[in-house]
Amino acid sequence: MNLGAFLYGFGHHFAAWRHPQTPSGKFIDIKLYKQAAQAAERGKLDMLFLADSSSLPNLQDAETGVSFLYPDALTIQSALSAVTEKIGLAATVSTSFNEPFNVARRFATLDHLSGGRTAWNVVTGTKKEEARNFNQEQLLEHGLRYERAQEFLDVVTGLWDTWEDEALLFDKETGIFADTARIHPLNHKGTAFSVAGPLNLPRSPQGRPVIIQAGTSPAGQKLAARTAEVVFTACENIEEAIAFYKGIKALLPGYGRTADQMKIMPGVLTFIGSTEAEAKRQQERFNEWVLPAAGVGNLSRMLNIDITGFPIDEPLPELSMEGNTSRAVMIYEMARKDKLTIRQLSHHFAIARGHLTVVGTPEQIADKLEQWFSGRACDGFNIMPPYLPGGLDEFVDHVIPVLQKRGSFRTEYEGATLREHLGLTRPASRFAPPIR
Amino acid sequence: MNLGAFLYGFGHHFAAWRHPQTPSGKFIDIKLYKQAAQAAERGKLDMLFLADSSSLPNLQDAETGVSFLYPDALTIQSALSAVTEKIGLAATVSTSFNEPFNVARRFATLDHLSGGRTAWNVVTGTKKEEARNFNQEQLLEHGLRYERAQEFLDVVTGLWDTWEDEALLFDKETGIFADTARIHPLNHKGTAFSVAGPLNLPRSPQGRPVIIQAGTSPAGQKLAARTAEVVFTACENIEEAIAFYKGIKALLPGYGRTADQMKIMPGVLTFIGSTEAEAKRQQERFNEWVLPAAGVGNLSRMLNIDITGFPIDEPLPELSMEGNTSRAVMIYEMARKDKLTIRQLSHHFAIARGHLTVVGTPEQIADKLEQWFSGRACDGFNIMPPYLPGGLDEFVDHVIPVLQKRGSFRTEYEGATLREHLGLTRPASRFAPPIR
Repeated sequence: MNLGAFLYGFGHHFAAWRHPQTPSGKFIDIKLYKQAAQAAERGKLDMLFLADSSSLPNLQDAETGVSFLYPDALTIQSALSAVTEKIGLAATVSTSFNEPFNVARRFATLDHLSGGRTAWNVVTGTKKEEARNFNQEQLLEHGLRYERAQEFLDVVTGLWDTWEDEALLFDKETGIFADTARIHPLNHKGTAFSVAGPLNLPRSPQGRPVIIQAGTSPAGQKLAARTAEVVFTACENIEEAIAFYKGIKALLPGYGRTADQMKIMPGVLTFIGSTEAEAKRQQERFNEWVLPAAGVGNLSRMLNIDITGFPIDEPLPELSMEGNTSRAVMIYEMARKDKLTIRQLSHHFAIARGHLTVVGTPEQIADKLEQWFSGRACDGFNIMPPYLPGGLDEFVDHVIPVLQKRGSFRTEYEGATLREHLGLTRPASRFAPPIR
Repeated sequence: MNLGAFLYGFGHHFAAWRHPQTPSGKFIDIKLYKQAAQAAERGKLDMLFLADSSSLPNLQDAETGVSFLYPDALTIQSALSAVTEKIGLAATVSTSFNEPFNVARRFATLDHLSGGRTAWNVVTGTKKEEARNFNQEQLLEHGLRYERAQEFLDVVTGLWDTWEDEALLFDKETGIFADTARIHPLNHKGTAFSVAGPLNLPRSPQGRPVIIQAGTSPAGQKLAARTAEVVFTACENIEEAIAFYKGIKALLPGYGRTADQMKIMPGVLTFIGSTEAEAKRQQERFNEWVLPAAGVGNLSRMLNIDITGFPIDEPLPELSMEGNTSRAVMIYEMARKDKLTIRQLSHHFAIARGHLTVVGTPEQIADKLEQWFSGRACDGFNIMPPYLPGGLDEFVDHVIPVLQKRGSFRTEYEGATLREHLGLTRPASRFAPPIR
């Protein structure tokens, strides 16, 4: 199976910053990121994954939580590229608030710097508070956001292709640096973008950095089926995961792609103990750190709706979810179906925000991961440690050896690039002459 | 004096890539950047400086040169932050092709990661080829570019101020993370930008990253006088440098600033030998590597005008320089005044693109730098090694010790942040209560 490590502030549990091991007073510490990155590499994981967001949703939430704070993901991954050797580096960048030329150039630069270890997690804006930091009063309507995302992706992959692999001659003797017949303008003129190209960088080691997407909504699934090489999903039960896996892979032939060209990797948060009881005690300890107001604030952000005014011990009332994200709709429907109170719902989502949670011994956790993998619910997982960097050390030192012993996970890196770790082929430039 | 190291591909001389020491076949090698960064830090230099550009001017140039290729400067500096401890990290980012929220967040992230070592070199777009990669047929007119730049800077510094220093409480006991009374919206509504804020990151170690500008044109000088803390100039003669220094520092009181709040640092390229003759032989060797077509192509880029069709051994003809950059106008006027042929001009600018060039022994070079510094022509220099990383090793190992022995340059870092290296004060947040 393929495994990523999802680094997220002081950890994925909403109250992780209150863990005794987190260093007080410093929000971003390169030492902690380095320690986590090097732990993941020690565990031979495929990649480090970083989320991103461009707004502070509301000030009340800032009082009790940290998970609304986002350093720039690609900047962090760039720093980590210099202190890692093999592991892939996946960064989230939004198509709603950037220019494709900048995004193409930043990822190409990091792909060169890292020797071909980069992936771009493609997202669209999800919050109106983000739009308001970028000259807009509201987000584009959902369909238009995805149309822009598709065009954005076309331009970025096009720019990555503008230099054929053979364009770089680097002939010191003759003084001829490049074969200009193999450097191509892009001349893209579309609805949202006009980009002349070519990129001002040679083609990067992976040809194109790996493309990651969430692919939850119908528009998102269509975009993913056309372009995503890794799909990072959130799913708490195996039946739904199997249905999703089957459904999205069935879309691939319609876009001229095969099932092995896309890896499905749901997130999984693990509480690990030497006994199941110890693991459960660890989970309870984290939940005690969640202040009620903080839990409800977190839930409001996930729902994109302020629910702080409703009674905490009554079921979530009926809300209009029109135009909201598929993630928010999923949470709402789960709450309504199971008649969960706001407090119950807030505890649930303080842990893993809708991702699979597994609590147990290393063997129990390995069993669960293998069950999902062999049951064709996924091709691997994005590991979400409840606290960082210690929680990742626990996973690497206790769960990875069990998976390795059972032959479910690699014991050494076999390739050099992220594409090689994931078993994805290196795409040819669209401008390269056909192979005869 | 203050000293920066300007890293630029395989070196600043146009033909540096043909130097026997450059590693063939790899355009961006993190090992070379690391080696250069660590050499600069060994020399106790103030900062590493990186230029940036967002277009490939024309394909003909790509055939023979590499200086038109630009990896993303801030991505490179982010990588170098993880393998350096003390040295400042200055990256060029254009205000013409970015969004202020992204720029504020990327620099704040790197300032956190690096412990307060970041500087932003603020430029506007200079080439129509850049505009064409960003939905525009032409650059904005010069005055409008600078108006946008000023507003862009106001928004970015405003976003950096949105969290007061005391906003971060990080109280694990009570679960209170932040004092929301000390986190402020920006609510900027201007001509080019509407940005709500606040930033989704706490205030960074330097309060605000250091602001660098070129400040050559009248509009550029006005912008620099208002906001620049370092001015990176290109000047080949001391009388002009003294006049510039005096002129721009005289503008500062009009903006409520004092002369010590701005450091003037011209670029200087050095050919170093154990004798003057050896240094000159080194310079000649580099010039032999410049193909005639490549030299003229380079000059065309610097002039923003294609002059490849004119006879190479005749003087530069009369050209319309209207709307062109002040750098291009300066080159044109120098050529016309001195009646230089295109070939002579191309050789001259293949070396240091209009920056001061010093050829000699370490003692001779130290003499020249001290002459400029003590003559109030500058506050320091941006060192431009003709080839990299070897040329920087030469400067650090041979010239720096002479300057240190004479008491002209530090022998140890005294501070931790770039502001401290440069002797610049840390600005207070505009939202912080006045000190009583």
